This record gives sequence, C-alpha cells and structure tokens, in this order.
Amino acid sequence: MSGEKNILVGQSGGPTTTINASLAGVVAAAREEGCHVTGMRHGIQGFLAGRTVDLGEALPGQESLTLLRQTPASWLGSCRFKLPGLSDQAFYEDALARLDAAGIDAVLYIGGNDSMDTIAKLGTYGARVGSPIRFIGVPKTIDNDLVGTDHTPGYGSAAKFVATSCGELFRDADVYDLKSVTFVEIMGRDAGWLAGASALAGPRGAGRPDLVLLPEVPLGEDALMERIASLLSKQNTVMVGVSEGVRTADGTLICEKTVAAGTGTDEFGHLAQLSGTSRYLADIAKARLGCKTRAVELSTLQRCASHVASATDLDEAFELGRAGVRAALDGQTARMCALTRVSDEPYQTVPVLLDVVEIANKVKPVPRAWISADGMDVTEDFERYARPLVCGEEPVTYADGVPARLAPLA
Amino acid sequence: MSGEKNILVGQSGGPTTTINASLAGVVAAAREEGCHVTGMRHGIQGFLAGRTVDLGEALPGQESLTLLRQTPASWLGSCRFKLPGLSDQAFYEDALARLDAAGIDAVLYIGGNDSMDTIAKLGTYGARVGSPIRFIGVPKTIDNDLVGTDHTPGYGSAAKFVATSCGELFRDADVYDLKSVTFVEIMGRDAGWLAGASALAGPRGAGRPDLVLLPEVPLGEDALMERIASLLSKQNTVMVGVSEGVRTADGTLICEKTVAAGTGTDEFGHLAQLSGTSRYLADIAKARLGCKTRAVELSTLQRCASHVASATDLDEAFELGRAGVRAALDGQTARMCALTRVSDEPYQTVPVLLDVVEIANKVKPVPRAWISADGMDVTEDFERYARPLVCGEEPVTYADGVPARLAPLA
Repeated sequence: MSGEKNILVGQSGGPTTTINASLAGVVAAAREEGCHVTGMRHGIQGFLAGRTVDLGEALPGQESLTLLRQTPASWLGSCRFKLPGLSDQAFYEDALARLDAAGIDAVLYIGGNDSMDTIAKLGTYGARVGSPIRFIGVPKTIDNDLVGTDHTPGYGSAAKFVATSCGELFRDADVYDLKSVTFVEIMGRDAGWLAGASALAGPRGAGRPDLVLLPEVPLGEDALMERIASLLSKQNTVMVGVSEGVRTADGTLICEKTVAAGTGTDEFGHLAQLSGTSRYLADIAKARLGCKTRAVELSTLQRCASHVASATDLDEAFELGRAGVRAALDGQTARMCALTRVSDEPYQTVPVLLDVVEIANKVKPVPRAWISADGMDVTEDFERYARPLVCGEEPVTYADGVPARLAPLA
Repeated sequence: MSGEKNILVGQSGGPTTTINASLAGVVAAAREEGCHVTGMRHGIQGFLAGRTVDLGEALPGQESLTLLRQTPASWLGSCRFKLPGLSDQAFYEDALARLDAAGIDAVLYIGGNDSMDTIAKLGTYGARVGSPIRFIGVPKTIDNDLVGTDHTPGYGSAAKFVATSCGELFRDADVYDLKSVTFVEIMGRDAGWLAGASALAGPRGAGRPDLVLLPEVPLGEDALMERIASLLSKQNTVMVGVSEGVRTADGTLICEKTVAAGTGTDEFGHLAQLSGTSRYLADIAKARLGCKTRAVELSTLQRCASHVASATDLDEAFELGRAGVRAALDGQTARMCALTRVSDEPYQTVPVLLDVVEIANKVKPVPRAWISADGMDVTEDFERYARPLVCGEEPVTYADGVPARLAPLA
C-alpha cells in the first residue's frame, strides 16, 4: 500500500478502561503514515447503517488524543452484533460493496471475542473474493480470556482496580473487634483472570483476600465454609474474592442456585438480577458460621475506572492500535495484533501478529497449575504473571475535582 | 497545661478515607508540643477493656505518619458503643478512674455523631466532678450530616469517589445505540449530601446524572417514571443518582418496599440485604418503560477509596486533628473542632471550636432550597457548596501496582 490510504476503525463489545487508548494508537499511527481515518459509530452495525465520523475532524491535534487515551468506554460507540455465517453471501457482498464505496483500504476493529469473529469472517470472505481490503483485529477485554496473546489490553487496568479496591475493602472490613467475612464479587463468567487479580491487593492480613474462587474449579460449599471457619478461629477478618462465574460440581452457577434455593426469588425469576454470587455466599456463611458477613459487587466500575488505570495497560493498548495500522499497511489481513512476553524481569512484551481465525470463539482459562490444590486460591505463579500488568500509574488530568474526559461524540 | 502531657486518642464509628489523616494530625501536633500519645484500640470500648497502644513506638518518624495519612479505615480499630446516660454514675466514675490511672491529660475522639455523644457525656461528667481531663471531639463522617460545621472530614473524599465513579459509569452506560437507564445507589440513610455529590460528575450528557434523588424529598414513583420517559424521548442514556435513604411520601424506605412488593423476598425477610433501592427502581423502570436498566451499588468503597482521596479533605482532616490537640492544651473541654467557610472563591476554611453538647445526636439535612422544585435534582447552589470539597489530588504512593498503606497494628 502507498499514497493516502483510508483506514476505517471501529470499537465493539463491552467497553474497557483502555479501549480508547487503542483508538488513540490507531489514529496516531495513521497520521504518522499519512493515512485518513474514519470511525464507525457503534461498530460494524453502525457502519452498515451508514453512520461514520471523520476522525481527522473529530480528533484534531495532540491534545484530543491525549484526552481520548484517558477517557473510559468506547468513545466511538459500540455494538453487540454477530456476523452471519460465511454462507450468507449476500451479507458479505453488501458489506464489501459498502467498504469499497467508501474507498476503505483497511478495517481495524477493536474488541473481544465476537469482534475477532467479525474480523475472521470479513478477512476470510475478503481473501476468498480477492478483495484488496485489509482486516485487522486489535484485542481488548477485561476478561483476559483470548487465546494466543500473553494477555489482553483492558485486563491490566481492570485488575488494578480490583486489586486496589480489595485492599481498601479489606482495611474497611477489619476495623471492628469482631468476626466477619466479606465476599467481593468480581467479573468474569467463564474465566477467573480478573478474580485472581484480587490476590494482588497487598500482603496477607493487610489487603489480600484470604481465598480466591474461580470458575475454573468447581466450588464445594461445605469445603468453603469449613475453610472459612478455620480461618476465623485464627483471625477476625476473612475476605474472599469470588468470580461471578463460580459454579458447583454439576456446573450450576452459584448465582443460579440462589433461584433454586428460594432465598429471595419470586415467580418471575427476578433473582439472577436481584442477587449475586457474593450475596448468596454471604447469606450461607452468616447462617452457618453465625458471624457478620458482607457482600460487595465491584460492578461495571471494573471496566471503566480510568482514574486508576494501569500505565502498562495504557501503553500496550496504544501500541497494539499502532501495530494494527502497521500490519494493515504491510498488507496483512485476517490477523489479530497480540502481545508476546519476552521477559518477566524486567517485564517486556512485543507485539506479534496472529491468524485471527485461530483465536475467535475460543476461551483461555486460568491454568489449573496456577490455582492452589484445594481450588480456593491462586498461586505465586499467577501473581508473578499478573503483577506487572497492574504496575505503573499515568498522571490523570483532573478538572473541577474529577477526571477530565474527552467530550462524547454528538 | 504545661510539661509533658499525655494525650489519649481513639477512632470510632464507621471508617472513612481520611479518618487516619486526622489521627496523623493529632500525632504530629502532639509531637510538636512535646506530648506523649497513646491510642485506644477499638475506641472507647477497647480502652475500657485495657487495650491501648503507645503511638510513640507504633508511629516512629515522619514516614509512618505520611503513610498513615493515605491509609483508609480506622487504623487504631473502631467500635460502635453508645455510652450510658449520665445518671449511670458508676460507669463514669470507672471511666474517669481508668483515665486517671493511665495519667491521661486529654482525650481526643475522632468520629461521627455517636462519638460526639461520647465526648459530650464524658466532658459534661468530667466538668461536673471537677476532673482536669480535657475531652475534645474531632469529626469525621462521609454522611456530612453533623450540625455546626460547614462540612465534615471524610465527606469530600467520599464525594470525589462518588462523582468520579458516576462519571465513569455514565460513559460506560452510553456506548450502545439503545435506550437505557442506570440507577447508581449512594450511601446516606438520613441525608442526601453524598447522593448530591453525584451531580459533580461532569457536564450533563457527559457524566453527570440526569436526576439526583435524596432522602430529604419524598419520592413519587409515578412522577419519577414520567420524568425518565420524557428524558428517554430525547436521549439514549439516562442516569439517576439515588440515595439509599430515599423514601416515599408515607416515610417507607424504597428498599423496604422491595419486601412489601414481593419482588424478590422470601419468608425470612432476606430482601433488605438482597436488594437495594437501585435494584427496585431498575426493576420498575424496566417493567414500565421497557428499556434496558442497570443497578449499581457503589458499596463501602465510598468510605475507603483512598486512591482517589480529595487533597482538600486530607488537609482539613489533618488540620482538625492538630486543632484538637491545640484546643486540649488550651484547656478547652467538651468541644468539637469544626470548619467555618470564610470564602468560596478562593475556597478557604478555618477551624473553630463548638460546644459538642449542641452537636451530638442532631442531623443536618440538605437544605430544601438546594434541591430542585420537583425534588429530583440538586441545584447550582448545592454544586457551588460541594465542588471545592472534592478538589485537589495528592500523589498516592504505589508499591507493586497498588496503593502503599501502613501495615495494620498487630
């Protein structure tokens, strides 16, 4: 590719703290390469409905890119839209015709598993029909469950918020001279990467949860209660970091069990919304152990708390956006930009390109070897893996006492 | 008072982000004045059980005080212990005898309403029997509901976390091209100061909740739903900051109503724990308006998120601790250190001493004039009052990617 190229960039799936840092990286690299950049409003769905924004106009100069980098949630807007199978030729012919009509040379899509599926399908179809358009995926997900990459942008900042919050909640829970158990509920339906990050909260007895429960290992309620009782015989305050995706041995989600157990449901089945895993465990701990219990859901703040973003994560998200532009200009297609860790100390990663077809629709669990034998904690190997991802702080610009953010698109 | 005086300091009630900054202020001032400082473990209850700590040994040098200042939650431990009425002479004789036996010259108690009641009772009794011991209260509460003071230490930092989080949650909620309503539940059972702080989140349409619901004004569910429907006809994303203490016209807490309405309760009445105000409102909004809704509880992070503390709050909390020592050395007793605002622009406060008997057991609501006519928002006057309290950021020391904190007392 040479001359002024037209790059189309979109964001898709659940937002993260650093998804806009990747967008800033795309725009910065495109400018360096003399490319024009158009943004999809609300992802591929918005593009197909004709909604785009000229990012040369919308993001003038360096200042707006700097502010974009520290603005949480998909600034271009997002969608949840699964492309049809490749047998739906009419859909793909239409999509490619629209891209051709807009003069697009490369499509960069920043997202998680479903977004990589989008790039895999468009890239595969494009190659099949000999389209010159390049399709590149730039990963993001707080869940950190994409295969092939050491980790995903978005995870480190979510992990830093989880670890920071757990440490603060532990100190808050520990002030009274009485026995108490706090369950902190952490996102991650299918993989326990984010719940495991609670182990980074600080030293044991001073911030770190005593136990960490992941979806990867079935939860035995009796074993858990016995373990908590044992801890309470030696200390006042017990904290448990628990993934929202924790299941019992028969595969039932704990938060589904709350419906089955009837502790707080109604005939409309509202309970999956009303109550969560942490509340269920807090209720049975209170009933069985007779002590004070508390349930805390860290909520969607996990994916948008940009005021405590990881500088490592921001840098890597930005660099993968840049890497996406370089890959497209190099003529690559149907690729995902990934991170390979080349050194633990000092921590160092390099961007690499992977075949996106090999990545889409797969889930990477926490390795069993990084979970303790009893299934109720993560090991030092897990901490060694995750620790560098939460390190580093970038100065946040504040205005009137709250973090400054780029104004939303109209 | 002259010579080496012995100061006893305690912390009581719910912890806050800056309660240790006040403790650091007490210790710093005591050192400057050549006083010895002893800490109560777990408040007055711990002291009466003989549990104290020598703070000269436990907090050596400046470094530990600096770390203490940015450590959340009551480092000395806390208690919830209401002193008996003054007619219980045996209790007060015993308490004063224990203080005399320990050679205590002054008691400083950092806490909220109940703690000021403790100082009022001990101070009144001490004066009645001619005790030379001085009793001084240093206020803290995230609820900001103490009378006599412009505001309370702890409020500004909680308000900064609430405003920062609401701004981030708004951006997160606004990414999809669909109608949605998010209810953010904020602490404050009896007064809406903290819920009102959500209005500081940023510009309308870019972070600030559209509506703010306080306990001070009865909530009409129909009027609220009509108002939300009207907003949704003009915009995609509606956010409501709602106090956990919001009530209907007959005085029923919304979170009690969830039990009455049967949406998710059981025969054991678990629901007050299972579900909150935000979940209830999200459920009826979903049922009546047919759009996506989300309920977020900001949880106890509101009172311990020291990584996003207000520098103004930290400074004032520290200075009121110092002021408490000065007041005691000046021979004052049964006083609370308070803040008087002498200027809005530039924002400036001075410490003053108030009669603690006039403060204890009273609640200061948000003035009706600072709430909009329809009761569903706060006014610019409220924002003008609260804005300076959230301003200023103090660099947080990080270690291994999480905020450094002083190790807990053994």
